Amino acid sequence: MNAMNQSLYIEPLTPEAFSAYGDIIDASGEPTSMINNGMCARYNNRARLDFDSSGQAGISIFEGQPYSLPHTVSLVERHPLGSQAFIPMSNAPFLVVVASDNEGTPTAPKAFLTQRQQGVNIHRNVWHGVLTPLHTAARFAVIDWIGERVNLEEFVFHNPWVVELHA
Amino acid sequence: MNAMNQSLYIEPLTPEAFSAYGDIIDASGEPTSMINNGMCARYNNRARLDFDSSGQAGISIFEGQPYSLPHTVSLVERHPLGSQAFIPMSNAPFLVVVASDNEGTPTAPKAFLTQRQQGVNIHRNVWHGVLTPLHTAARFAVIDWIGERVNLEEFVFHNPWVVELHA
Repeated sequence: MNAMNQSLYIEPLTPEAFSAYGDIIDASGEPTSMINNGMCARYNNRARLDFDSSGQAGISIFEGQPYSLPHTVSLVERHPLGSQAFIPMSNAPFLVVVASDNEGTPTAPKAFLTQRQQGVNIHRNVWHGVLTPLHTAARFAVIDWIGERVNLEEFVFHNPWVVELHA
Repeated sequence: MNAMNQSLYIEPLTPEAFSAYGDIIDASGEPTSMINNGMCARYNNRARLDFDSSGQAGISIFEGQPYSLPHTVSLVERHPLGSQAFIPMSNAPFLVVVASDNEGTPTAPKAFLTQRQQGVNIHRNVWHGVLTPLHTAARFAVIDWIGERVNLEEFVFHNPWVVELHA
């Protein structure tokens, strides 16, 4: 039997829709505090970082080549040893695909599109697509688990998902 | 006796010049690895993160109002409980002022200017100026120690430093 594509439509990236998978890292709401003599607003602790004690948090740079829509997702991955945050260092939005887990199998994927100057933190062991900047190459700071153990699990969909902008 | 200003000239932000104070977080050199089927270059673990075990790493957002040159630095601060990384989420460069320590007194300050899409990680307990975006307001992701203890020490210079672009 041939593989059949399945459509996946982008939905708004809201805390309500995303909280089961991760955190939105942005400056929404009121600042937690004003610092530096009023010159800087601090929005404190926007991500649930969670790293296995066999390694530690690190900051890496990812330089991602662009994708375009519609975008076919045939593979998702997850990181059993830690959360993974993506901080865009340019203004380009990026696509965020996540999925629930059903006994080791990713299920019910969802697709979101960030706004400019908005990052995300994928929670530990949550299925997600690879880094997907749209239209232009983009640089990200990535805060994830660094250590010696294997921190990657991949899953290939028999029927790939095709992410599209509108239903 | 009145306070007298002292000039401080901006020098190039190089790993050699900055390594005593912190890390430059950028994509210089060869990628550590190519991931995502060749679509993404990973520059691994660019910052020496160091957090006191009484708290943990967190990601916060700083929205900083702009400063302009010449810029007077009368106060520096340091964080005894952890490193502090500044990841720019826009293309604006920012000023980085650091200083050595002499038995609790900041000494021999230095001023650097980042390039676009370049972050810095200030090492634990290193004296530094407050976040200083130039010309336009700018958003940063800040990775620093989050916890209940006091993590701030400040020092006010009797003779402020004036950061200028050229000698």
